[in-house]
Amino acid sequence: MDTIFKSERVAAAEKAPQSALGFVETKEFTFAEPLTLESGEKLGPVTLAYETYGKLDCDKSNAILVLQALSGDAHAAGLHKGDKDPGWWDDMIGPGKPFDTERYFVICSNVIGGCKGSTGPSSPNPLTGKPYGTNFPFITIGDMVQAQRRLIDYLGIDRLLCVAGGSMGGMQALQWVASYPRRVRSAIPIATALKHSPQQIAFNEVIRQAIMADPAWRDGDYYATGQPEKGLSVARMIGHITFMSEKSMEQKFSRRLKNGELGFAFGADFEVEGYLRYRGEQFVKRFDANSYLYITKAMDYLDLSGGKLISGKEVDTRFLVLSFLSDWLYPSHQSQDIVRQLKRKQIDATYCELKSTWGHDAFLVELEGLSALIRPFLEKTYLGPAGVKGKGGGHVR
Amino acid sequence: MDTIFKSERVAAAEKAPQSALGFVETKEFTFAEPLTLESGEKLGPVTLAYETYGKLDCDKSNAILVLQALSGDAHAAGLHKGDKDPGWWDDMIGPGKPFDTERYFVICSNVIGGCKGSTGPSSPNPLTGKPYGTNFPFITIGDMVQAQRRLIDYLGIDRLLCVAGGSMGGMQALQWVASYPRRVRSAIPIATALKHSPQQIAFNEVIRQAIMADPAWRDGDYYATGQPEKGLSVARMIGHITFMSEKSMEQKFSRRLKNGELGFAFGADFEVEGYLRYRGEQFVKRFDANSYLYITKAMDYLDLSGGKLISGKEVDTRFLVLSFLSDWLYPSHQSQDIVRQLKRKQIDATYCELKSTWGHDAFLVELEGLSALIRPFLEKTYLGPAGVKGKGGGHVR
Repeated sequence: MDTIFKSERVAAAEKAPQSALGFVETKEFTFAEPLTLESGEKLGPVTLAYETYGKLDCDKSNAILVLQALSGDAHAAGLHKGDKDPGWWDDMIGPGKPFDTERYFVICSNVIGGCKGSTGPSSPNPLTGKPYGTNFPFITIGDMVQAQRRLIDYLGIDRLLCVAGGSMGGMQALQWVASYPRRVRSAIPIATALKHSPQQIAFNEVIRQAIMADPAWRDGDYYATGQPEKGLSVARMIGHITFMSEKSMEQKFSRRLKNGELGFAFGADFEVEGYLRYRGEQFVKRFDANSYLYITKAMDYLDLSGGKLISGKEVDTRFLVLSFLSDWLYPSHQSQDIVRQLKRKQIDATYCELKSTWGHDAFLVELEGLSALIRPFLEKTYLGPAGVKGKGGGHVR
Repeated sequence: MDTIFKSERVAAAEKAPQSALGFVETKEFTFAEPLTLESGEKLGPVTLAYETYGKLDCDKSNAILVLQALSGDAHAAGLHKGDKDPGWWDDMIGPGKPFDTERYFVICSNVIGGCKGSTGPSSPNPLTGKPYGTNFPFITIGDMVQAQRRLIDYLGIDRLLCVAGGSMGGMQALQWVASYPRRVRSAIPIATALKHSPQQIAFNEVIRQAIMADPAWRDGDYYATGQPEKGLSVARMIGHITFMSEKSMEQKFSRRLKNGELGFAFGADFEVEGYLRYRGEQFVKRFDANSYLYITKAMDYLDLSGGKLISGKEVDTRFLVLSFLSDWLYPSHQSQDIVRQLKRKQIDATYCELKSTWGHDAFLVELEGLSALIRPFLEKTYLGPAGVKGKGGGHVR
């Protein structure tokens, strides 16, 4: 175990678990009517894991859908009983926070294809009773959003005040506007893209190859024999390099040695090596290798460029597009491409590049900068004149 | 096989194999007296593969040592009988070329630890008669250069006109100056660094983990059973992403599909995926997995920062330091760190960042830009006043 993590864990243990939202639970929504997927295949029944924070108001105009990144889950905020850490965006969601649960009803939905309570390759195939494995149908970001639309229907929400998320969460936010523009009053895509560049596809492809190179992967049929742990661990290590920036790695690790001296062997000499190994090892305990394959492919397939983001003429969704200076995985020019497409269609869009050294991870940690922009954007959207910017505006508590 | 490669190969086949240098052969130099390595271990006997081009002049003042990158070899220029392609820097070395073989005697030396004719983990261990595997001693860039010094001694060269190389070749060039400053009149480190940043270490560590995760690696003892092909292929795919730039990938591949349509499966949908898979598959045929482990560790261990590059006061080596705008693996600020250290010691150093979109690969392909700077630098070094800038100057043919 790395000393750097020992100290981090000690610090976490000393701090009593807390969240302004208190305890929360993940819920499940299951629908029987199959989804027709973009591939043409059908998937059903489908379960989506989700959480909600705050209360839906009487005219159902205060609902915000928060969307997760690749390896995230529905647990965006609050505490699960027994857990030490709150949800992944707990600093952003809660009373008085930018996604203010005293004002808004915040929903966080998991994705199909995942392994965090929603239907995915590790779920039982109703035809066989055994996990789907690679018999799970191929899915796209559009399919994920189609499933989420059923959840929003089920919750009785006609129009979301906002869809928001970083990375793949931003992709889902964009896809929501592309698929169901009338149902989205505003969108906050963060550190994301209309489509993956060949470099982004390349990283995902190497991630997939690392998993599939592991003989334990067994063409995806490993649920009785155990995860392809080594391959999945290597895959996640690749991911972690791309999540950080050269500068944040320098700040966090520099060339500090793990054990005070060089080992002249193939162990982890440097702290950064220990960190990556640790991250890889932890990841295999919490994520399904097949889900990683399916979801990375869904990301690579997304292409909302060339006018596909805003196709209708009547779209009045407002946008706040955010990127981070040091994010080289989803570089700012990709966010600027989103804005360019929006402006061409005369959509109300604000763009900001936040000055962060955290690389792509910034959407999870650069919270002050995000809050300062998201809070007023949501307020303006929520309190905007009724009828002018769609149903549900003008509501003042 | 990829269509992009088919067409490339057709083009190559149509063009008759040629090099201005004609046919060349790789030579071997073996010395029995063991090297004492930085780890304290001994290695011997040692063989170094090398090639030479041009003629050593009477006062032995025109010798240039060209140094290879990680997976390179001694075959820098000219043609090997039966080969279609000339050496890896053939456009830079030859009659009338920047490393002008009508004027200079150019040596290219392989490295210990490698698998291209020099002593490395795939060589027979004299104690057992079987390949060393991971019983091969740990090596550093300093050890590689120490072995090369024996070769230069053997060739009877007291002082090299220049040491030059890109990437790990640049590291060796820097190490030559650090270890044997009096023996180097000038150095051209290209796209390199005094030390690896944590991000560079991180990429190398994931590369090593990918190899070691393959059960076929067998702790390095695979010479009777076959290479860890899958792991080595994944490792090389990671490498190739870092060698290119976001822009060069966009120019080369964009999001073009390999088979005209999305496959909705885990095959290679995009050309960039096919390219990486192909590169990975080719690499396992020509490179030893253990050598990849040893050499990447040697690179990670190098640290010539903090005054270690120029330690003596009497160093008069001239420098031409070059980097490339789009190289994010060895970013320009690392070359600027080299220059900063040189200037602090009042060393004659010229720096240029070349405007290239090729990323780190630029040192192999951005030949016009390199030539325009290297040619006059070498001429000035070669023709400099005798005695002022060391032995051997003032020679005019």
